[in-house]
Amino acid sequence: MNTQPCAAVVGTGFIGPVHVEALKRAGVQVTGILGSSPAKSVAAAQSLGLPRGYQSFDEVLADETVDAVHLTTPNRFHFEQAAACLRSGKHVMCEKPLAMNSAQSQELVQLARQSGLAAGVAYNIRFYPLCHEAAARARTADFGDCLHITGSYVQDWLLKPTDYNWRVIAEDGGELRAVADIGTHWLDLVQFVTGLHVQSVCADLQTVHATRQRPTGETRSFSHSNDAATHPVSITTEDAGCILLKFSDLSRGSLHVSQTTAGRKNCLRFEIAGSGQSLAWDSQQPNSLWIGHRDRPSETLIRDPALMSPSAAQVTSYPGGHNEGFPDTFKQLFRTFYASIEAHDFGPSQKYPMFIDGHREILLCEAILQSHRQQAWVDVDRFED
Amino acid sequence: MNTQPCAAVVGTGFIGPVHVEALKRAGVQVTGILGSSPAKSVAAAQSLGLPRGYQSFDEVLADETVDAVHLTTPNRFHFEQAAACLRSGKHVMCEKPLAMNSAQSQELVQLARQSGLAAGVAYNIRFYPLCHEAAARARTADFGDCLHITGSYVQDWLLKPTDYNWRVIAEDGGELRAVADIGTHWLDLVQFVTGLHVQSVCADLQTVHATRQRPTGETRSFSHSNDAATHPVSITTEDAGCILLKFSDLSRGSLHVSQTTAGRKNCLRFEIAGSGQSLAWDSQQPNSLWIGHRDRPSETLIRDPALMSPSAAQVTSYPGGHNEGFPDTFKQLFRTFYASIEAHDFGPSQKYPMFIDGHREILLCEAILQSHRQQAWVDVDRFED
Amino acid sequence: MNTQPCAAVVGTGFIGPVHVEALKRAGVQVTGILGSSPAKSVAAAQSLGLPRGYQSFDEVLADETVDAVHLTTPNRFHFEQAAACLRSGKHVMCEKPLAMNSAQSQELVQLARQSGLAAGVAYNIRFYPLCHEAAARARTADFGDCLHITGSYVQDWLLKPTDYNWRVIAEDGGELRAVADIGTHWLDLVQFVTGLHVQSVCADLQTVHATRQRPTGETRSFSHSNDAATHPVSITTEDAGCILLKFSDLSRGSLHVSQTTAGRKNCLRFEIAGSGQSLAWDSQQPNSLWIGHRDRPSETLIRDPALMSPSAAQVTSYPGGHNEGFPDTFKQLFRTFYASIEAHDFGPSQKYPMFIDGHREILLCEAILQSHRQQAWVDVDRFED
Amino acid sequence: MNTQPCAAVVGTGFIGPVHVEALKRAGVQVTGILGSSPAKSVAAAQSLGLPRGYQSFDEVLADETVDAVHLTTPNRFHFEQAAACLRSGKHVMCEKPLAMNSAQSQELVQLARQSGLAAGVAYNIRFYPLCHEAAARARTADFGDCLHITGSYVQDWLLKPTDYNWRVIAEDGGELRAVADIGTHWLDLVQFVTGLHVQSVCADLQTVHATRQRPTGETRSFSHSNDAATHPVSITTEDAGCILLKFSDLSRGSLHVSQTTAGRKNCLRFEIAGSGQSLAWDSQQPNSLWIGHRDRPSETLIRDPALMSPSAAQVTSYPGGHNEGFPDTFKQLFRTFYASIEAHDFGPSQKYPMFIDGHREILLCEAILQSHRQQAWVDVDRFED
Repeated sequence: MNTQPCAAVVGTGFIGPVHVEALKRAGVQVTGILGSSPAKSVAAAQSLGLPRGYQSFDEVLADETVDAVHLTTPNRFHFEQAAACLRSGKHVMCEKPLAMNSAQSQELVQLARQSGLAAGVAYNIRFYPLCHEAAARARTADFGDCLHITGSYVQDWLLKPTDYNWRVIAEDGGELRAVADIGTHWLDLVQFVTGLHVQSVCADLQTVHATRQRPTGETRSFSHSNDAATHPVSITTEDAGCILLKFSDLSRGSLHVSQTTAGRKNCLRFEIAGSGQSLAWDSQQPNSLWIGHRDRPSETLIRDPALMSPSAAQVTSYPGGHNEGFPDTFKQLFRTFYASIEAHDFGPSQKYPMFIDGHREILLCEAILQSHRQQAWVDVDRFED
Repeated sequence: MNTQPCAAVVGTGFIGPVHVEALKRAGVQVTGILGSSPAKSVAAAQSLGLPRGYQSFDEVLADETVDAVHLTTPNRFHFEQAAACLRSGKHVMCEKPLAMNSAQSQELVQLARQSGLAAGVAYNIRFYPLCHEAAARARTADFGDCLHITGSYVQDWLLKPTDYNWRVIAEDGGELRAVADIGTHWLDLVQFVTGLHVQSVCADLQTVHATRQRPTGETRSFSHSNDAATHPVSITTEDAGCILLKFSDLSRGSLHVSQTTAGRKNCLRFEIAGSGQSLAWDSQQPNSLWIGHRDRPSETLIRDPALMSPSAAQVTSYPGGHNEGFPDTFKQLFRTFYASIEAHDFGPSQKYPMFIDGHREILLCEAILQSHRQQAWVDVDRFED
Repeated sequence: MNTQPCAAVVGTGFIGPVHVEALKRAGVQVTGILGSSPAKSVAAAQSLGLPRGYQSFDEVLADETVDAVHLTTPNRFHFEQAAACLRSGKHVMCEKPLAMNSAQSQELVQLARQSGLAAGVAYNIRFYPLCHEAAARARTADFGDCLHITGSYVQDWLLKPTDYNWRVIAEDGGELRAVADIGTHWLDLVQFVTGLHVQSVCADLQTVHATRQRPTGETRSFSHSNDAATHPVSITTEDAGCILLKFSDLSRGSLHVSQTTAGRKNCLRFEIAGSGQSLAWDSQQPNSLWIGHRDRPSETLIRDPALMSPSAAQVTSYPGGHNEGFPDTFKQLFRTFYASIEAHDFGPSQKYPMFIDGHREILLCEAILQSHRQQAWVDVDRFED
Repeated sequence: MNTQPCAAVVGTGFIGPVHVEALKRAGVQVTGILGSSPAKSVAAAQSLGLPRGYQSFDEVLADETVDAVHLTTPNRFHFEQAAACLRSGKHVMCEKPLAMNSAQSQELVQLARQSGLAAGVAYNIRFYPLCHEAAARARTADFGDCLHITGSYVQDWLLKPTDYNWRVIAEDGGELRAVADIGTHWLDLVQFVTGLHVQSVCADLQTVHATRQRPTGETRSFSHSNDAATHPVSITTEDAGCILLKFSDLSRGSLHVSQTTAGRKNCLRFEIAGSGQSLAWDSQQPNSLWIGHRDRPSETLIRDPALMSPSAAQVTSYPGGHNEGFPDTFKQLFRTFYASIEAHDFGPSQKYPMFIDGHREILLCEAILQSHRQQAWVDVDRFED
């Protein structure tokens, strides 16, 4: 009898190996990996110490030992592959974005509901333990009502016109880039923390470099090589942008995203003001949560299971002062995902980000793009539940 | 012969005594102070060690020993008093806002130009030495082109519905409050640092408390007393807001202001991304300037005249590591203001904030208010030069 | 043929499972685990998803599939078990301290040298990538000569007289506690970073609580339970202490250790001043290295393989801004350890901490204890090479 | 009638003008200043806007309008000048060190007691409001018993062998330099905060540069000029050092001082662990006090009179979030000093640092020097009360 769940990983770029390692840590057996060619599959399997490099996506679906499939492929494959997984009876953990448009993502939501399978989207940042802690505190009387939610997600890896990655091309990554790639992480996170939904947006986006130099060969995310031959390509996706937000209660806020801020490597910050206290967090110091007070000194909570809410303590593995980081978020996300699978719990309310969360982000992106093009406020379409 | 310049201060609230002390430090003789009643004038003169408590504003204007008048009165008196000073041949340093609307402030700009007198607005934050340093660096090739300018100015002293101050009432402080009181400091600062002007705004403002409890007696800024009798008053001014910004080049940005963020006592932050490097500063740690780099470690410049640009070194008085703070900004502002006076330099380009800067902020406020009401982008009217 | 190395883990406390997970991440197959009883072995194997719970230490040694043994047992077992592993032809990775005294540890060093096997001590903190980076930078001309080395390692988990753990009892943990448990991590680290050795010490130690309440049952590290029955026990091990240091060149320094500093969960800090620049690091923000300069702004290097020395980039797995933490240090330590094993490199100079490093720490502890008792400077005995 | 107290300042180096400005802010009239020559006196008076440049020290003493004299001369003049002031019936505020040795300082203590005059030493760092706050909190039950006191005072202005100042020469500055110049500030501060006294010391000092290049002309503190002609001089004073400390209760601690730590401009840090909570402060961020807790999140108190103890609120002038800095400490010190004078309170217990505090620091320095020379623990001689 197979008691340990088994997963296959599709995709061998930056994030595929992150899934592989986190699955091992979460106690999930990884059956193998699929790359963009059989040779790449075999090479990845070997370097990651996995038993099998798959020949094709169909081979993954046909592998009866596979309980769940992790999709870490380029964005444009997500819809088709996720649908195929569900239709093949495989649980699926899909990297964001869930699909290329909301028609696709809505279809996936319905497919997932009918499937009786687990269907998650890898919004891993929720799984920094102190983000769970913030969510627990945002629901307390001490926090009070939410007043405003502001912050940013900024990086610098696309600062120069010579920086290039498939994501900058609308056809490959989607019409939105910075908002879709990193802004949606922020939007998912603050909605997770507060329990509120964004209802209207007013966006203004910037394409800092209308032309970038594309290397002849391939490139990986977060890497720069200077010696390759290049040719200019026109860029229509945004490098940066600012967005005003109205939430489902009376809360208001704003988000700034940028992939062109020198010195900020990968920096997500939020500041959520409640009527009783504030909560602020910075992904570059993820083991600290700032709790702002008016009438007494503000607090800094160091990630310490002994001092955290039960829901947050549950997604941390190490004692106070023993820093956890980016790879740990995937471990905790997958522990949560597979705990539901092992419990045969496929209900509509899960502790991991579900397809409906991925769909919501795509609706948000579409509203943001429309808002930018119209230079006006746009309501986010509500998902017909 | 009286070589040392002499100043009178009008206003005895929080900021009047700040001016008095800074004038002494700047080597300016303070002739006396005027309060809202002769008795208050005398009491203030005594507690501040000044030779004279003026009986009336006219008495100030009539005092021939007075070279310059500092206006720290409630906002609604600024226009009339500033005009009277200029007409009486007195230099004037006016607290912000310069006036209650742009018709008034435009009139003051013209009056100042014709007067051949020094006419400044007390945007003191520019005079944190590292803000001058940021301005110097923003003009270098290393910084490059400005890409985006984001930040916030947040406080918590009006968090609770029982917090009250004359500024919350539109009739006394103006229709805008948080934006006008603190947002304009941020807007002035980033325009000073970058040399750019805001051209269009899209604002969304929040009145968190539509009703506040007004104490029967008077209250001072930044103070809370809980035991006074109160009665409810309706509030129309904003407690918080978010604003999208378009600058005079292609730069974009956003500003968040709030007087209802628990734990942020008086926190102005900016992050300015250039094509070569970034600059970030936080008024709660004013002696550090962050300089962000893509291809080498980012830097933190501790305020140290030995390491700063000449223009910044000129507005600092103490060696590296010897912190300067809020009161020092007024000292440096006044040193700069009176250096121009002593040099008989009343030309159109000064190192201190001039009436035109104050006017620009009022135009900005009017555009922001209109934008909020229309929930749309609004262009800032250009000053007809 | 089994190309992937195989390891067994001995010990099921806090740190045993840390080894198990890090071994999986490092691509090492974990054959099984041994606890203090067969039942505990089976339970740990099950919860960690390992194929086997060993019945006895002899069974581990007899398992021919085991290439290496990880010892995470209480300190008093290390000597005997490490020796047994080497005599059985198993590579060994031993938790610190290597032994209970320097006679034992010296014997182990010789045994390891004769064995032709890999023999490491788990000084994991070296494997924070920025500690490797500091080591690389400390060897540059820009850093210059080392002048002084200061810092601390402070925690709060033994602050109260009701806090208890087997380590507080000299018979179980050794005569030294705070110095041995955490001080040796700091001492190993700064010697690794600078390449210098401590030659003389002058120590003053404190036993804050001469009596502690011992629970009747067992306790785990970093956990507090308040409801168990307790009885008082006398404590002779130190809760805190300060130590003056003389290094093998002219460098001087000091170290403060404490397990009784409220609010410091697990905080190791060093500040190393060179004649050209300084290096400072804080384990609570392990992804930042401060580089101090005299004549230009100081720098903060965010852990980013693109900006780090090759030796440091080699022990990091994620791009800049994607935080790594405590568990990643074990992964990198084990990657380094098993890379040597796979390369059949068992020479005297390894990139992982060797038995001689463990021995050196024990000599240091003995000198520190003697210095404290004599209240005088004591030379650290040199290892006869 | 002259109700406002009047002070003369002796010394025109870095710190003399600091006193002048702070006296003005404290509402004290400055009668004039004395430099090392009549010409320097006049120049300083002019640049500082003071009515008078004194011709000689005797002229200062003879000036009947002078109530108090501030001594900011080189160390070797302090004893003689302070004694002369007291004998002339002038209150005296002396820069540290109070004298060149403990025989002198003890004589001054007795002279001060007999004089019925105010006699203070300018340990200004106590007057950072959050240092007063720490002192208030260290006396609470929440803090509990003091366990250990550690920290450092580090600078970089004497890092290079070409850095020179009169203080490096034993004849001018005293046999101890870094310890005397900055270490005594730290020692005074932690004794003020905790109410404890250092009883025994074990010191190890370093002269990093045994030879320095002395410019032919004069130099000022904290300044570097590279183009002057120089000649080598031998240096016997210490650039750095570490000291173990035993306090009057059971507390232990350590201090590190350095004037050769690149990047630390003027950085005093302490960490004081109590049995209930900890207190930590860094002079480079003086408006924040860290309060460490074991069983709840640690706190950061932003300097805010509304949240501080009465004794601390009394020495702050600005609301929360409006940073105060180095110059403000002198203002608060002098406000405190002159408040006692105005109240004719010359009793043995004052809120400002008294001559006995200055004497205690000299005893400490003598013990530290002896300890270093003997490489052994030395008891601090007790003042015969």
